Amino acid sequence: MSDVLVVGCGLLGTSAGLALQGSDIGDVTLWDRDPGAVDLAVSRGAGRAWNGEERARIAVVAVPPKATAPELLRLQVLDVARTYTHVASVQSHVEAEVQALSSDPSRIVGGHPLAGREVSGGGAALADLFVGRPWAVCRHENAASDAVDEVRALARACGAIPLEVQAKQHDAAVALVSHLPQVVSSALAALLLGAPGSQEPPLLELSGPGLADTTRLAASSPSLWSEVLEANAWHVAPAVRRLAADLGRLASNLEVLAGAHDGDRASALSGLEDLLVRGNAGRRLVPVKRGELAGSFAGVRVDLPDEPGRLADLLRAAGEAGVNVEDLRVEHVPGRPRGVVELLVAPARAGGLAQALSTAGWKVSLST
Amino acid sequence: MSDVLVVGCGLLGTSAGLALQGSDIGDVTLWDRDPGAVDLAVSRGAGRAWNGEERARIAVVAVPPKATAPELLRLQVLDVARTYTHVASVQSHVEAEVQALSSDPSRIVGGHPLAGREVSGGGAALADLFVGRPWAVCRHENAASDAVDEVRALARACGAIPLEVQAKQHDAAVALVSHLPQVVSSALAALLLGAPGSQEPPLLELSGPGLADTTRLAASSPSLWSEVLEANAWHVAPAVRRLAADLGRLASNLEVLAGAHDGDRASALSGLEDLLVRGNAGRRLVPVKRGELAGSFAGVRVDLPDEPGRLADLLRAAGEAGVNVEDLRVEHVPGRPRGVVELLVAPARAGGLAQALSTAGWKVSLST
Repeated sequence: MSDVLVVGCGLLGTSAGLALQGSDIGDVTLWDRDPGAVDLAVSRGAGRAWNGEERARIAVVAVPPKATAPELLRLQVLDVARTYTHVASVQSHVEAEVQALSSDPSRIVGGHPLAGREVSGGGAALADLFVGRPWAVCRHENAASDAVDEVRALARACGAIPLEVQAKQHDAAVALVSHLPQVVSSALAALLLGAPGSQEPPLLELSGPGLADTTRLAASSPSLWSEVLEANAWHVAPAVRRLAADLGRLASNLEVLAGAHDGDRASALSGLEDLLVRGNAGRRLVPVKRGELAGSFAGVRVDLPDEPGRLADLLRAAGEAGVNVEDLRVEHVPGRPRGVVELLVAPARAGGLAQALSTAGWKVSLST
Repeated sequence: MSDVLVVGCGLLGTSAGLALQGSDIGDVTLWDRDPGAVDLAVSRGAGRAWNGEERARIAVVAVPPKATAPELLRLQVLDVARTYTHVASVQSHVEAEVQALSSDPSRIVGGHPLAGREVSGGGAALADLFVGRPWAVCRHENAASDAVDEVRALARACGAIPLEVQAKQHDAAVALVSHLPQVVSSALAALLLGAPGSQEPPLLELSGPGLADTTRLAASSPSLWSEVLEANAWHVAPAVRRLAADLGRLASNLEVLAGAHDGDRASALSGLEDLLVRGNAGRRLVPVKRGELAGSFAGVRVDLPDEPGRLADLLRAAGEAGVNVEDLRVEHVPGRPRGVVELLVAPARAGGLAQALSTAGWKVSLST
């Protein structure tokens, strides 16, 4: 008997396998209908191949949205595990199918880690993909409470934060926080195609991180996302309609400011400012820290000569001061004999570390 | 005589000062009408305070858009430098004002680094803000060629890639690659305010990196951005109008798929897929690498026990192998006695480093 059976060795399944290595949840077995995907996940260290018979404590179905409910039902008939969960981006239709067709729906609990990458497949999997991320646990009133506990424990073992919500609440929420950003990103990127001169410099060479970030999601898989959007169309449609109307009003204001048609410039400008101010307020509602990982560290900035071994010297000095460096960022200008390293440490240790490094001759400042 | 006079110690000015430290461009003096901003920039190591008289080889005006042309003209009358440039997000109106009012417009060359952060002020400045970014150099037909060369050298000394464009080309390009992403991000974030339950869990707790990235720009300064959008309204308005229309059509397709009104489901689905596919194609046009910094490194992944000093041991081992670690990423699961570190090194050194670390007993894989 294995502890966790991961079904589907794509980005999410393989990342879960990687994340569970070294956790206290136990042994991970992997299956995919494509044997090559299993091989890749095994070679990346995400677990061992499932032999097709071994029973698991919990099976995690990480397959495309439309395949999720059928796969859960198929596996339950084969009795491969005691508890079942999945990672589908839209929950209500999976829940409805499970409730209607499962012989024991109490053992199947919906789950959805709010994590992902615009690249797919096991090759893109990351051990820390779920760290600090919310992991929705969609508890139906029929669910066995030990099954819900298993799913919560799985989410925590992957480094995520389990969050219980009803399937409908979940779907309304992700329409706004996940599906709307996806279509906006796609629409924005699509617009670049039609732009005069977009195929050549200098138009796109002038882009900075703003365009890169806002269009990152546009690289996502069209087949996966048309499934997701179709499944959640009921919640996504009104949000897209509202956004289109807001942008239409903004276009009118800009047209007035451009002198393209008549209108009150002062009120056009105030409409424009109002949108930007509301954008500030909306942005403040967005959680941007990665849970327990971010916010809990303080930064110590150190000037570093760009020579082999100097970063090692610095970290050895931190180690000698008894401080564990949790993460670091190298601020580096190529071809320049100088850089700045920011060491992230437990806040209580930052002051002591800065002092110890200073004493040892490093040029140090605490981060603002 | 100083080499570079930075006028305006906000994010861009202070970052330029920091970037120029250690470059071969020489000495940096700093000025701002707010003496506190100068003190902050000096304390961060961006240069020394300007005494109000010293003449510079080149003056960089890094003030808000509307103040840019007046400040350039004022400084030129005071004869504080031989060459002048600026960093305004919209170029045409600055150029027009300079051409109309300067006694010697040949010494004033427009410039715009395509870099920034959604946070402002000298406290947010970064030495590597410009590294690998494009820096538009807007050469008017009247410009003295040695003045253009000075501005190109300044951009390169900051780590950026100078790119000559005409002011009008520049403004058309940034409308699409910078100003449109800004308004989209603001409109998306603003929509969160009106959403049912947006003020409380679980709606926004379920958000992931997609919402965080697409709304990052929404944190930008409304006063700065309403100036920018007003100045470039002629180019931004049609792009916003097109996007609003595209999203309106998407909303109609989703409404059909939701069964909210009649329509052909197959054609609605294909319209949806078409947008996602065009989004993929548009995204492929977006430069996402940071110029010379990215792409030029290869990654070596190493398993690391989470103990004080082990990262230092690893980097010492890399140093002993004679390999300079250019950057690194720590993949870290809190509370887990295990992590993965990705060391970024010159591609030609990656194989040798992996072998040397393996031999020394580290668990190593080359990054995919």
